[in-house]
Amino acid sequence: MNHGKIYNLVVVGFGGMGSHNAKLAEETGRIAIAGVYDPTEYRMDLARSRGYRAYENFESILDDEEVDIVLIATPNDVHKELSIKSLRAGKHVVCEKPAAVNTTDLLEILRAAEESERLFMVHQNRRWDEDFLIVKDLIAHKKVGDVFHVESRVQGANGIPGDWRQLKAYGGGMLLDWGVHLLDQLLLLTDSKIESVYADLSYILGTEVDDGFTASIKFKNGLSAVIEVGTTNFIKLPRWYVKGTEGTAVIRDWDLSGEIVTRNREVEHVEPKPIQAGKGLTKTMAPPSEESTIRRPIEHVEDLSDNFYVNLVSTLEGASKQAVPNDEVYRVMTLIEAIFESAESNSVIVRDI
Amino acid sequence: MNHGKIYNLVVVGFGGMGSHNAKLAEETGRIAIAGVYDPTEYRMDLARSRGYRAYENFESILDDEEVDIVLIATPNDVHKELSIKSLRAGKHVVCEKPAAVNTTDLLEILRAAEESERLFMVHQNRRWDEDFLIVKDLIAHKKVGDVFHVESRVQGANGIPGDWRQLKAYGGGMLLDWGVHLLDQLLLLTDSKIESVYADLSYILGTEVDDGFTASIKFKNGLSAVIEVGTTNFIKLPRWYVKGTEGTAVIRDWDLSGEIVTRNREVEHVEPKPIQAGKGLTKTMAPPSEESTIRRPIEHVEDLSDNFYVNLVSTLEGASKQAVPNDEVYRVMTLIEAIFESAESNSVIVRDI
Repeated sequence: MNHGKIYNLVVVGFGGMGSHNAKLAEETGRIAIAGVYDPTEYRMDLARSRGYRAYENFESILDDEEVDIVLIATPNDVHKELSIKSLRAGKHVVCEKPAAVNTTDLLEILRAAEESERLFMVHQNRRWDEDFLIVKDLIAHKKVGDVFHVESRVQGANGIPGDWRQLKAYGGGMLLDWGVHLLDQLLLLTDSKIESVYADLSYILGTEVDDGFTASIKFKNGLSAVIEVGTTNFIKLPRWYVKGTEGTAVIRDWDLSGEIVTRNREVEHVEPKPIQAGKGLTKTMAPPSEESTIRRPIEHVEDLSDNFYVNLVSTLEGASKQAVPNDEVYRVMTLIEAIFESAESNSVIVRDI
Repeated sequence: MNHGKIYNLVVVGFGGMGSHNAKLAEETGRIAIAGVYDPTEYRMDLARSRGYRAYENFESILDDEEVDIVLIATPNDVHKELSIKSLRAGKHVVCEKPAAVNTTDLLEILRAAEESERLFMVHQNRRWDEDFLIVKDLIAHKKVGDVFHVESRVQGANGIPGDWRQLKAYGGGMLLDWGVHLLDQLLLLTDSKIESVYADLSYILGTEVDDGFTASIKFKNGLSAVIEVGTTNFIKLPRWYVKGTEGTAVIRDWDLSGEIVTRNREVEHVEPKPIQAGKGLTKTMAPPSEESTIRRPIEHVEDLSDNFYVNLVSTLEGASKQAVPNDEVYRVMTLIEAIFESAESNSVIVRDI
């Protein structure tokens, strides 16, 4: 990746994600940070202190012919306007997730990209998360047999970050923030279309946006999924819980601790012994006898794919396809709209997604 | 409890629950096992080997004037017929759960009990489970603040027991089997009426009855609950997961291991540090800083209430009220019907329960 044209990228919005992205882009050796623009003065000072050129305003980026790529890491509500303006000015655009706050806005962006013949790529970086890749791998390799149920959760006790993410007008809320990652990952785990969605948004913190949600999703092929984001959870449930016909897999946390427990086909079925459970006896809920299951730790997987920014450069040069295709981004947005609709109407949305 | 009239109880259905109940009843010192009836010959031999009188048929129990109480521990489909016949013959009835397989049948039983002026009491023994009592106590004492979400799960990897519980005609399936316990417990955790139910039944094992289910229940007071029974889970999620405004409580298993983590009101809010999570950074999903929470083990609770059979005797003597009131049993059955209906129609049942 170290040889060839250097692409000039300008970071618009120099908050946490903006500076994180700048670092990742630079690491490719093929992208230079040509500058930064942020309407907040201290962030411009911060950018200058790191040696970045500070653009006076957004328009001056568009006017700068040296700029190849605009990276948009602003609050969600302005992704659309800034993306479209950048594309129309002939720039390629990398946009933080969610690409837009609804499908109508997203379609406008995608149309602008098409018309301008520029690349628009959404930073769905959690497609490269190892916990997700492990789950993808164990499904593909049937490590717990045929998977029929997936639960994917992120839970914290820190509430919604105390910024624009608490405000509706800025596209705040946890469904748009973390939900977009978990749903994007989920849709990559199966080839099947969605059949129906039932969801509940949480407003425990009293913010005008959701502080979390639970979505129960059924796929046409019989797979079911529970996707959950919580910011009021002082104890976490596992990050992943995956059920297959031969066993169950759990990834507990970001440290990738977890295990796979499967039926031991080598031994004949051993009837479990009833256990005392509360005031009753249960054989159904007794643990399977030791010899009838195999327990092993989660195996890490090696990811040989290009990372986001390497793929970006490679796509710009026609050598690769976009690692985050826009039709997939659009499908996730459609699902997010169905989740909002389900929660608002407290009903099951039966829809081909 | 050791003084006073001895009540003669006959066990109808001498499977696992029948013999378990016989033992519990005898322990009161006020109930004698007058005999056993079971259509399966080896079970009658088993009863005889334990010194119990073996009744030749069900009718001979009803004709026996010495018999005060009939304990019905048969497959679910005949609870109704046997209960009604026993009540009409002037016997009190203790019936294993579920009391009936639908509300219509249950109403007929309750009407028969009323007309005969006999006691009908359902063996919802898991009202006395310590894990449940701990949750009830922590809600009542606001140990995690105001509770707004409860998850109650039992999960095993042993499938449905290989008996009538796999057959629809006998009232099999896990919703009627374990579901009735978890739903009964749930309704005791709040005074509120239910607003809506969404449920999914699982048929992974290929049986004609459900091998498990998930129900999302919303109460009118804002409480939400997830109730889940699984028989294809090689790894268990926690038995209880309870979220309140001040913290979260977990009871992991029947051994009552678990913990309560709450906000530490003594310290000012300490912003958590962003952590690397997969390919991204997150502050939202970082653990709260150590000093900002208090972590303590689950405290056991002492149950001072009479147990099921002590309460039965005491109720027969007018000294107590039924620990399992029939209107509560009826309400649970109404909820079970709503769960079946929701799962069959893949829709939210909005109903005042």
